[in-house]
Amino acid sequence: MSASGWLWLTTAIMLIGGLGILLTGKRRTKAEELQTVLHGIVPIIAACSYFAMATGQGAVILPFHTAAAPIDGTRIFYFARYIDWAFTTPLLLVSLAYTAMHAGSKRTGAIVGIVLADVVMIVTSFFFGASEIPSLKWIWFLISCVAFIGVYYVIWVSLMQANHEERDDVQTVYRRNAMILSVIWLIYPLVLLVSPDGLYVVSDTAAIVFILILDVAAKVVYGFMSIASDTKITD
Amino acid sequence: MSASGWLWLTTAIMLIGGLGILLTGKRRTKAEELQTVLHGIVPIIAACSYFAMATGQGAVILPFHTAAAPIDGTRIFYFARYIDWAFTTPLLLVSLAYTAMHAGSKRTGAIVGIVLADVVMIVTSFFFGASEIPSLKWIWFLISCVAFIGVYYVIWVSLMQANHEERDDVQTVYRRNAMILSVIWLIYPLVLLVSPDGLYVVSDTAAIVFILILDVAAKVVYGFMSIASDTKITD
Amino acid sequence: MSASGWLWLTTAIMLIGGLGILLTGKRRTKAEELQTVLHGIVPIIAACSYFAMATGQGAVILPFHTAAAPIDGTRIFYFARYIDWAFTTPLLLVSLAYTAMHAGSKRTGAIVGIVLADVVMIVTSFFFGASEIPSLKWIWFLISCVAFIGVYYVIWVSLMQANHEERDDVQTVYRRNAMILSVIWLIYPLVLLVSPDGLYVVSDTAAIVFILILDVAAKVVYGFMSIASDTKITD
Ligand SMILES: CC1=C(/C=C/C(C)=C/C=C/C(C)=C/C=O)C(C)(C)CCC1
Ligand SMILES: CC1=C(/C=C/C(C)=C/C=C/C(C)=C/C=O)C(C)(C)CCC1
Ligand SMILES: CC1=C(/C=C/C(C)=C/C=C/C(C)=C/C=O)C(C)(C)CCC1
Repeated sequence: MSASGWLWLTTAIMLIGGLGILLTGKRRTKAEELQTVLHGIVPIIAACSYFAMATGQGAVILPFHTAAAPIDGTRIFYFARYIDWAFTTPLLLVSLAYTAMHAGSKRTGAIVGIVLADVVMIVTSFFFGASEIPSLKWIWFLISCVAFIGVYYVIWVSLMQANHEERDDVQTVYRRNAMILSVIWLIYPLVLLVSPDGLYVVSDTAAIVFILILDVAAKVVYGFMSIASDTKITD
Repeated sequence: MSASGWLWLTTAIMLIGGLGILLTGKRRTKAEELQTVLHGIVPIIAACSYFAMATGQGAVILPFHTAAAPIDGTRIFYFARYIDWAFTTPLLLVSLAYTAMHAGSKRTGAIVGIVLADVVMIVTSFFFGASEIPSLKWIWFLISCVAFIGVYYVIWVSLMQANHEERDDVQTVYRRNAMILSVIWLIYPLVLLVSPDGLYVVSDTAAIVFILILDVAAKVVYGFMSIASDTKITD
Repeated sequence: MSASGWLWLTTAIMLIGGLGILLTGKRRTKAEELQTVLHGIVPIIAACSYFAMATGQGAVILPFHTAAAPIDGTRIFYFARYIDWAFTTPLLLVSLAYTAMHAGSKRTGAIVGIVLADVVMIVTSFFFGASEIPSLKWIWFLISCVAFIGVYYVIWVSLMQANHEERDDVQTVYRRNAMILSVIWLIYPLVLLVSPDGLYVVSDTAAIVFILILDVAAKVVYGFMSIASDTKITD
């Protein structure tokens, strides 16, 4: 299948996933309504971004330099991806934070901290993707990774600590969700590293396919699971 | 009057309207202070945007294509409008949501949902306005309309339901404000449809005049009314 | 030292400052955690912006016009600065607002108002910096100053009033922090006025040095002080 074929397919999956979550998600308590809304809107934002990439409006062609040669050719830079992530990753983290502190009062500092670390991660990763000079590109990559460690820190230290005051089943759900999210998200930098935005050792289409699998996992599959577990701890 | 004459006039109206709301709005309770601040700042943001459009900084010239001919001429794309709306429409909706849930505890999910649906509506409508290829332009228009239905859903279902637990006079005020807002906002897509950003069947100046009437109604007139009714339910 | 030498130096100071605040800041209460996170992330965002300016990615060359001659030469426009400020100034003001209303319930209207006034100030100041036509440039400057007065109003009237209900030591701390912040921030428009973004009566490097002193004072020095005083009122 062509690159744009994959992008159209993902547009459809995201749209159906998002509407599916919005229509089947329960809204019995305020916490449940928030979870349904967050996880439902995340794939819809992604559908808009995939639509823009499929039609070419969300991508530009940039020169591709390596350390060895000033210009070796060109690459397609799908900038819409980063705009999508700038909105959806904070929403996913807010949802996780509300799961961690299900019944207790919310630690504003932890939520503000994880969202800001995440925004720094995505904004700097946009510069990674947009940079043409290799040395600058890789420094941005590094900075983005450091911010990513900050996100992990809040998940596994600050929120974990707040989560210890919750009921046992809430703790189980939080640890499982945090683990799944951490593993899926960890694959993103590895894929981007070898993609055309990075070293360009895999083809454009291959990178698109890898990332769409991650995106569907991180948004639709994780979304449905998160909603289901939230229903369980609300019952 | 020339296009820029109308834009200057609206700059002045918005400025006076915003300062008027800020100076006359009451601040006796926390809810009242929030309403005054929200409705006061909305026209001030619009004044900045109208100033940018009047001076030409908030507009660019784009080619105008139709399905029949690749380029039929050009149009002026006032992009500043969409930046204004990206900030002001969420503020107006937050104000409405706080009116709905005047005394009761706030349903975070409904507020997050209406703001996100609105942001999707405005961001996709920016792509509608900026697109040059007709087929893409109209798909964005459609997506934006679907998000708009999401906004209506929260106003008339989720917030309505939360509003049922309020006092009778708060319910009356909410229903009236929701109705006025819904009607005014519904005219926007109809005007944009025929404006130069859409089918270009009305002139540039005519579109400016239609939209400025809507903008003054949605921001200044609605703002003063909303403040007045809020004062009444606070008394 | 060259302009880029100063920018690299500031990148390092901001990075060390931010990490220093994050590592030494206390997190015993929710209020303290929020303060530490806010003041720690502010210099880290600034470090990213200074890095972008040092490498040239955060700057463009614009023609420089005066009223007398259409083009007198060029200037370097460091746009990254304004992006940094758009994120960091609201965070600093939120931190100040939380100090004002340390124990009491938060006045949402005041917080929303100060953040919106600040965002209007920074967005319009970006147009001031980016404008090439002198008359427009100076109108944007004026608009930005008016928004700045709005920020002062909330600090010295709305928050002050809310602060009167706090303990005596909280009042002392708030008044001191509000005073320091007000004085440092007041110097920004004076420096920008004479910088290449304004009248261009001081050199590019001189403007960089003046602004970096202000930035280090407003973010790192003020941050450490604010954290220390917050620790005191928490004890
Ligand atoms: C650290 C790092 C990255 C991390 C990206 C992540 C973690 C993205 C997650 C996206 C999700 C979850 C999207 C969908 O919901 C990049 C940008 C690859 C490159 C730079 C280094
Ligand atoms: C659905 C839809 C639209 C709706 C716009 C609306 C509803 C704008 C409201 C603006 C207000 C209220 C501004 C001032 O306060 C567009 C963009 C016209 C075009 C695409 C489809
Ligand atoms: C009023 C005004 C300005 C004010 C800027 C301020 C107040 C900046 C503060 C920045 C801080 C505190 C940064 C770091 O933390 C400008 C933009 C100079 C020019 C236009 C008029």
